[in-house]
Amino acid sequence: MIGHDPQRTYKAAVIGAGSGGLTLAVGLAGFDHDVVLIEGDRVGGDCTNVGCIPSKALLHAAAAGETDPLGWVRARRDELAEREEAEMEEHERIHLVRGWARLTAAREPQVVIVDGVDGPSEVRADHIIVCGGSKPVEIPVDGLSAERVLTNENVFDLTAVPDSIVLVGGGAIALEMATAFRDLGTRVHIVELEDRLIATEDPLVSSTINDALLARDVRVHTGTSIERFDEATRTAHLADGTSIDDVDRVFISVGRKARIEGLDLDVAGVDTHRGGIVADDWGRTSVDGIWAVGDVTGNTQTTHGASSIGRRAVRAIALPLPKVGDPRVLPNAVYSRPEIASVGRSMREMEELPAAGRARYVKHFRDIDRGFTDDVEFGFVAVDVERFTGKLLRAAIVGPAAAEMIGMFAMMIDHDIGLRKMFGSVQPYPAYAQIVGLLADEFADDTYRNLPREFAAMVRGRIARRLRR
Amino acid sequence: MIGHDPQRTYKAAVIGAGSGGLTLAVGLAGFDHDVVLIEGDRVGGDCTNVGCIPSKALLHAAAAGETDPLGWVRARRDELAEREEAEMEEHERIHLVRGWARLTAAREPQVVIVDGVDGPSEVRADHIIVCGGSKPVEIPVDGLSAERVLTNENVFDLTAVPDSIVLVGGGAIALEMATAFRDLGTRVHIVELEDRLIATEDPLVSSTINDALLARDVRVHTGTSIERFDEATRTAHLADGTSIDDVDRVFISVGRKARIEGLDLDVAGVDTHRGGIVADDWGRTSVDGIWAVGDVTGNTQTTHGASSIGRRAVRAIALPLPKVGDPRVLPNAVYSRPEIASVGRSMREMEELPAAGRARYVKHFRDIDRGFTDDVEFGFVAVDVERFTGKLLRAAIVGPAAAEMIGMFAMMIDHDIGLRKMFGSVQPYPAYAQIVGLLADEFADDTYRNLPREFAAMVRGRIARRLRR
Repeated sequence: MIGHDPQRTYKAAVIGAGSGGLTLAVGLAGFDHDVVLIEGDRVGGDCTNVGCIPSKALLHAAAAGETDPLGWVRARRDELAEREEAEMEEHERIHLVRGWARLTAAREPQVVIVDGVDGPSEVRADHIIVCGGSKPVEIPVDGLSAERVLTNENVFDLTAVPDSIVLVGGGAIALEMATAFRDLGTRVHIVELEDRLIATEDPLVSSTINDALLARDVRVHTGTSIERFDEATRTAHLADGTSIDDVDRVFISVGRKARIEGLDLDVAGVDTHRGGIVADDWGRTSVDGIWAVGDVTGNTQTTHGASSIGRRAVRAIALPLPKVGDPRVLPNAVYSRPEIASVGRSMREMEELPAAGRARYVKHFRDIDRGFTDDVEFGFVAVDVERFTGKLLRAAIVGPAAAEMIGMFAMMIDHDIGLRKMFGSVQPYPAYAQIVGLLADEFADDTYRNLPREFAAMVRGRIARRLRR
Repeated sequence: MIGHDPQRTYKAAVIGAGSGGLTLAVGLAGFDHDVVLIEGDRVGGDCTNVGCIPSKALLHAAAAGETDPLGWVRARRDELAEREEAEMEEHERIHLVRGWARLTAAREPQVVIVDGVDGPSEVRADHIIVCGGSKPVEIPVDGLSAERVLTNENVFDLTAVPDSIVLVGGGAIALEMATAFRDLGTRVHIVELEDRLIATEDPLVSSTINDALLARDVRVHTGTSIERFDEATRTAHLADGTSIDDVDRVFISVGRKARIEGLDLDVAGVDTHRGGIVADDWGRTSVDGIWAVGDVTGNTQTTHGASSIGRRAVRAIALPLPKVGDPRVLPNAVYSRPEIASVGRSMREMEELPAAGRARYVKHFRDIDRGFTDDVEFGFVAVDVERFTGKLLRAAIVGPAAAEMIGMFAMMIDHDIGLRKMFGSVQPYPAYAQIVGLLADEFADDTYRNLPREFAAMVRGRIARRLRR
């Protein structure tokens, strides 16, 4: 329902109606708690309005050859946003309040001030959950006019497809936009400061997606940045001395930062770090009764990440039970063509892990039958496993349906099913997923050929990890 | 290598170089056994030459708009077949013998007669493994000329795309051919005797693929058959009184039968049944030392099925160990658009199961975010589970990447991971695979709302199953 009662104490005040906030509000309402949901912008947050939903719709519209792709995307997006907004407005136990929230000094019950169009009002609640999300990091480019600049926040408002676009940053957003705009006939350049695209991923991911984009005539400039922009000639001058002519739009996607300004976190005494609010795997912050979930914590920058921690926070708030259970692994996916997906330890964690006791198996899609019949040039599945047990440390996929396949590897980690236990498992022929079985075969071949050696290697690896700690 | 020594006794004589036979030959050779591989036709069998490979290549070529799709398919297919043939000819431990094999009365070692171009020769081996495959069932149609008839054995030899095609039979082959030829602009009719398409599958699969094909202008005639064909007017007259005009080709795919004639199974005393050779999950027939794997047994009609039982047979022959371990579940997939996949108990087994103690959860792709952004009209994931435990009995998927996703459900069965254990699992947003999590949520919602009731239902179901036995 719309509005709240300032005299009443609610179970929770949820700040932000994005994917984290909606998970919290709906989840707590499902436990029969009354919740105040505070949103100053559009219900659905970035995901629905300027993130996953319009970007996936644009990828579809571009590939399907929609005549007015951007109009189609806006129509789809608005339909979903209105539906989500209506659901919140009509929910019996969710009290939707319009305005921007700020915290106050600790007291019982907690008080949140909401600055709405009719001035400030107070919301009282046992718990405050901050789901403020994030926003694109801005970088100044010398000479570049503001009208030429795109981010995920305004790109879906375009009424015409740009002739050419320079994507600054080579992460997930850039790779998806490169795919969609290339389909739409735009000339696409990517300028990435790191020496490879999507540098948080496996280097084999970077080189594979790089090759796949080049084959589609996307120009990739790595290890450089835009030094200045010449509006008269529409030229981007890069730090490596090269330049890009006839630039129509410059899309900035160099990272995201937590949306915490104005929340008065310091007044409430909530600790922050570089990435945003400090919060644990259950969403708990440094202050009792104040929680933070999603991008605002810097722990995750995905909708499924926010929603997963959100569900744990619901459990922690609604159920007076011990907080047991490891968090499930969070896979990542990029919906570029080919798709990219990964799960397990981060590349940084992998680097910190001693090399002893682990092995890597890689299988390329072009070397399996379906890759052959479907003429798949670029893509692979790579797994890093513990030797002897086949326990999965990390998996990365570039290729068709990567985002649909990564779930099998997530299950292997969640349920401790190593490659050894996958030996003999059957996938339908000739699905791409047959690679799972082929990796298990290679692992078995390696392992059973010399069990004592593999066992010794596993033990060495475990000792090395213990010593490293 | 090519040829064999008639005086020598080999570890095994493998009859047929299709997917089952190749698995056996390569598998046993991998254990350092010398094997004779006997093939009268092309290496690679149906799968490589007239089955999975050319059909998947045609689906790809049709969707990708190849200018000479059938020529492209033949080129791909031949490239793979030649590669497989060369591998067998060059293999140190595999002795490729050209000709048609027949068994002899039991003796030690076993003797297989091969009728080659230079007359008959004998092959001596400790084990004989029959991997004869299957061939399309032929049905006579009154008035239909032989030149107009297609099966999977000659369709890929077409040099022009037919204007119109009538597919007789509504199973996997027909659904894939309907998809490919519709993409190529052919007018497509399906005539199926059963009252629904792909009648071995869940009825929801049938109705969904039916709707999806209708939306693509494929005409579906169920519960009827071709009564006669009028060559003068190119008209197919159906048993239901309707007719189909301007028929260019008639594709017969009403089923497959084991290729056992000429094998002299009766001479060797090998038992057969309606589906082919009687064989168990390890490929053992009624005669010691004679094995049968793949379509020839009627136990499976898929490449992954033949290959899976083939691997077990390799283990049984090569390793003197007890034959323990349940066979892994064999998923099915059809690469129509949308794709179809299923795993777990067959529909017949489901019907024999008492209804007590089980529940069904269905989620449609159009109701999830990615289905919305990608405009997916047809498709769902349906699971039948035991109440309370969430143990998976069966899963069926119609929709994008169904063949890639079914592996998760196969893992759930293989590793006894019920929907209860999948609660809280995370898939990347907005992958189609998110449906797995949503089904687990619905299950949890149902179950935790009333644990005693669900527990009692589970117990009732288990008792009912025991009584039924």
